Amino acid sequence: MTITITAFESSPDGGRGLARDTRVRWALEEVGRPYAVRLVSFKEMKEPSHLALHPFGQIPTYEEDDLVLFETGAIVFHIAQHNKGLLPEDGNGRARAIAWMFSALNTVEPPIVEREQSRFIVGDKRWYGELLPILEDRVRVRLDQLADRLGDAQWLDGAFSAADLIMVLVLRRLERSGLLEEYPNLCAYIARGEARPAYKRAFEAQLAVANHDRGAKDAKRQ
Amino acid sequence: MTITITAFESSPDGGRGLARDTRVRWALEEVGRPYAVRLVSFKEMKEPSHLALHPFGQIPTYEEDDLVLFETGAIVFHIAQHNKGLLPEDGNGRARAIAWMFSALNTVEPPIVEREQSRFIVGDKRWYGELLPILEDRVRVRLDQLADRLGDAQWLDGAFSAADLIMVLVLRRLERSGLLEEYPNLCAYIARGEARPAYKRAFEAQLAVANHDRGAKDAKRQ
Repeated sequence: MTITITAFESSPDGGRGLARDTRVRWALEEVGRPYAVRLVSFKEMKEPSHLALHPFGQIPTYEEDDLVLFETGAIVFHIAQHNKGLLPEDGNGRARAIAWMFSALNTVEPPIVEREQSRFIVGDKRWYGELLPILEDRVRVRLDQLADRLGDAQWLDGAFSAADLIMVLVLRRLERSGLLEEYPNLCAYIARGEARPAYKRAFEAQLAVANHDRGAKDAKRQ
Repeated sequence: MTITITAFESSPDGGRGLARDTRVRWALEEVGRPYAVRLVSFKEMKEPSHLALHPFGQIPTYEEDDLVLFETGAIVFHIAQHNKGLLPEDGNGRARAIAWMFSALNTVEPPIVEREQSRFIVGDKRWYGELLPILEDRVRVRLDQLADRLGDAQWLDGAFSAADLIMVLVLRRLERSGLLEEYPNLCAYIARGEARPAYKRAFEAQLAVANHDRGAKDAKRQ
């Protein structure tokens, strides 16, 4: 049962680990499952063969025997369901961890992506400087609430879970925005995630792709 | 085992069924589980007693014995896990339905909410007329892909599932935007969802709250 995931051939973040394949790599490393990676170009992502795997033309996808999955939340959940260590064993704790998974993706991430994408879609408009602080305040609403709930706890609800894995990577998207620095407990939370050996292996694996891509581009230029 | 959910005392949509409690009501109606509703005001939603149930101060919440859940995706999933009829029985089909649940909430809904909220947060700016079509095009990217994948199928992947329940209500947020009319198969898909007896019961239940609220406000004015 080989697991194959897809990732960017040429990641827009140049190996900072913000692309969504890092979430799946980290989950697989936490549970100790080996996996293969198929790299896809931006052009290939919009072609019928990839759209058959992922209706929205994104990465990562997940293939295992005759199962094909898309959407990182679902892939991480599938890995957590079929392997030990990423979700609590007791029913109520498990349901709460799943609630945190959904909230990371449906409540915390959307305003973060909205702020991030605004630069690409309207960054050249004369009114962008007026829009950006409004979008940042919307991010702050969620960070305030998240920081309040987390308090001094290590993880969102008891032991480290798939929800923390996703939340840490959702929050990492705010690096270089200056917003995270307003929340010392969230910075410490991210650092705890990044200190996990499984995270480090996942991060190194995606970085190796970016470095290889960079090398190939350099060679092409020469 | 009484199930109690929370809903708006005074829904901003006046009973159109777009508030997120409709998702949970519909899921409970599909599986035939009775439930109680506790109405909360906007003020109460931000108070410590509600924040203890929902860290982001929203509705709905879900209480059953000593389990407290927030986030509609997680609540609908919990209902689907513990009752028959909302998720396929076979493992692969179930995993794919869960992928569609996450994609409804993390890929399709965010640009829809972004467009919807833009009116409230920057609708008074002189440049709003320039921003709105850009946000609408971002919604169209996802609707194009969703319409392509759905094609002439009745539901997203085989039989009706929790994923369709969420996707139908995510798409309904675009009513009155004029965007849905560009996609006849998505309109037909929404209509199939709305034709389900369980949906009708859920819709009527939330409408009764809005009508009662309206009556109370009228009485106050007299």
